[in-house]
Amino acid sequence: MPTLSNRLTRRLHIRHPIISAPMAFAGGGALAGAVTAAGGLGLIGGGYGDPAWLAEQFDLCEGERVGVGFITWSLRKSPSLLAEALERRPVAVMLSFGDPRPFAEDIRKAGALLICQCQTIDHVWDAVDVGADIVVAQGAEAGGHGMLRGTMSFVPEAADLIAAHAPDSILVAAGGIADGRGLAAALMLGAEGVLVGTRLWASSEALVHPRHHEAIVEATGDDTVRTSVADIARQIAWPRGFTARIRRNAFTQSWHGREAELERNAAVEAPRYRQAFAAGDPDNTGVWFGEAAGLIGAIEPASAIVERMAAQATELLTGGAGPATASRR
Amino acid sequence: MPTLSNRLTRRLHIRHPIISAPMAFAGGGALAGAVTAAGGLGLIGGGYGDPAWLAEQFDLCEGERVGVGFITWSLRKSPSLLAEALERRPVAVMLSFGDPRPFAEDIRKAGALLICQCQTIDHVWDAVDVGADIVVAQGAEAGGHGMLRGTMSFVPEAADLIAAHAPDSILVAAGGIADGRGLAAALMLGAEGVLVGTRLWASSEALVHPRHHEAIVEATGDDTVRTSVADIARQIAWPRGFTARIRRNAFTQSWHGREAELERNAAVEAPRYRQAFAAGDPDNTGVWFGEAAGLIGAIEPASAIVERMAAQATELLTGGAGPATASRR
Repeated sequence: MPTLSNRLTRRLHIRHPIISAPMAFAGGGALAGAVTAAGGLGLIGGGYGDPAWLAEQFDLCEGERVGVGFITWSLRKSPSLLAEALERRPVAVMLSFGDPRPFAEDIRKAGALLICQCQTIDHVWDAVDVGADIVVAQGAEAGGHGMLRGTMSFVPEAADLIAAHAPDSILVAAGGIADGRGLAAALMLGAEGVLVGTRLWASSEALVHPRHHEAIVEATGDDTVRTSVADIARQIAWPRGFTARIRRNAFTQSWHGREAELERNAAVEAPRYRQAFAAGDPDNTGVWFGEAAGLIGAIEPASAIVERMAAQATELLTGGAGPATASRR
Repeated sequence: MPTLSNRLTRRLHIRHPIISAPMAFAGGGALAGAVTAAGGLGLIGGGYGDPAWLAEQFDLCEGERVGVGFITWSLRKSPSLLAEALERRPVAVMLSFGDPRPFAEDIRKAGALLICQCQTIDHVWDAVDVGADIVVAQGAEAGGHGMLRGTMSFVPEAADLIAAHAPDSILVAAGGIADGRGLAAALMLGAEGVLVGTRLWASSEALVHPRHHEAIVEATGDDTVRTSVADIARQIAWPRGFTARIRRNAFTQSWHGREAELERNAAVEAPRYRQAFAAGDPDNTGVWFGEAAGLIGAIEPASAIVERMAAQATELLTGGAGPATASRR
């Protein structure tokens, strides 16, 4: 049977070159374990630094080979969290959104692979400098936090940089990838695998309210917006330049473009946002998915998602694709 | 010899599934003719409605099979331009940025294929409704005018819509595509070809000032911004929602985010912008390229660009690509 075997699958000891994005709140142990069990690598979302929650999530996938991901600037505020996570012997630790240097040595000493997620070419240089084992080039299509580069040109540009300056590092693509077409395209662009957020956010195992799941099934890819309003409403001080892609809804329509006013109203808006989020209100809080929403027609088990993605990509790449592939005439 | 033969190459009678973007001002007859001569299809940029310029450009590629593209909302203001262009027997007419319905019948009656460029799923529905022969899904990575969807998820979402509702229409991808990797990726995503702007803007035949060409060779893909400031400075009233990706420079740093003030200063800024543009100043005017800039290391003849793109994509798709392709183990 054809397979997508490459440096990434060998380095991670996985069957399919598919990694789950460590989505804060949504990506817990059940999802990470299911992705690993299906042949990819699951990453638990370390989020904003709640050690009890993180311990519980590791417990949920005890016995599966998983990794963990952190929001780097937030991890600096709770550095003991990394040590606690490393005690769980993660396969890999992914650092996103901040300087990876302060944490790289501890991760390596613990025997975990270092994954650095990048949104700009400067970030890729940082990942190269720190000797990242795996570099994720994340495009702006992605749900949740990110920046402005599109996946389509960012991935090959990162591939060229890595080939020239850090050929042992392995490139993975993220942003807008939800099926085997996206995986096959990422491999053509020079990546050796994909990091999948939105499509796995829409899985049975993700920690997402059923009404938010209903919203993504109904959405097209046009129904999102990259904005700071969720972070302002939650009073989480993200560093300048990072925004979050969320569903375009009554909440974003009210506040996107009126950020300063929202900041002045945060004492009222913060509890209101959190209450609406907890209640699964799809209209008056952040609903955290990306442009790949338009490729998602159902909430499914992670295993079905991962296996279909790998099978479809394999078929496309081995020439079963009909009009879209090269032929010898 | 392997070839990328598919419905697009057969419909257009071309060797490579590569179409040049009809870039206003930059994409003249020399570029369109060169792209066609190299085996793709060249489109002259109809721009903002200067009939003498357009006639001259058609003269420059007399004898080559080329097409032409228009800014649809602008064409409505100079409808005779379409009739004049159709007298030159273009292979295809591309309509972008506006409702294609008022022009579709004339284009079809003249025996030209109708290409509709789309930036949102609603636009794709419009293209389907009007019976477009070719639908271009253009991502936000693109240089010049566009909207916000990223190429990576927009193309497969458009492919699904077209497969379900207009299976005779042919999908083409645009935005961030500058080499064979991008072409191969576009084919994996479900497109049957690519529309190439930025990479051909950086060709010897493009009508671009040498100092602007120097700027793109030096740029990374991070060095652009999607903004309205060039249109405000030029006093061209683009419809709401469309912005232009241009080089991030002193001009954009001064005005991006201060659009209302720029509008008030337009009487001074408009002539200043145009003078700087004519002089090839790379810092104080719009320099019109997209995120694919980071994939471009030299200004080359269009023929070299088109032929290398096709050859590289063919090699990737026929399995010469090593680690990035599926293998049978």
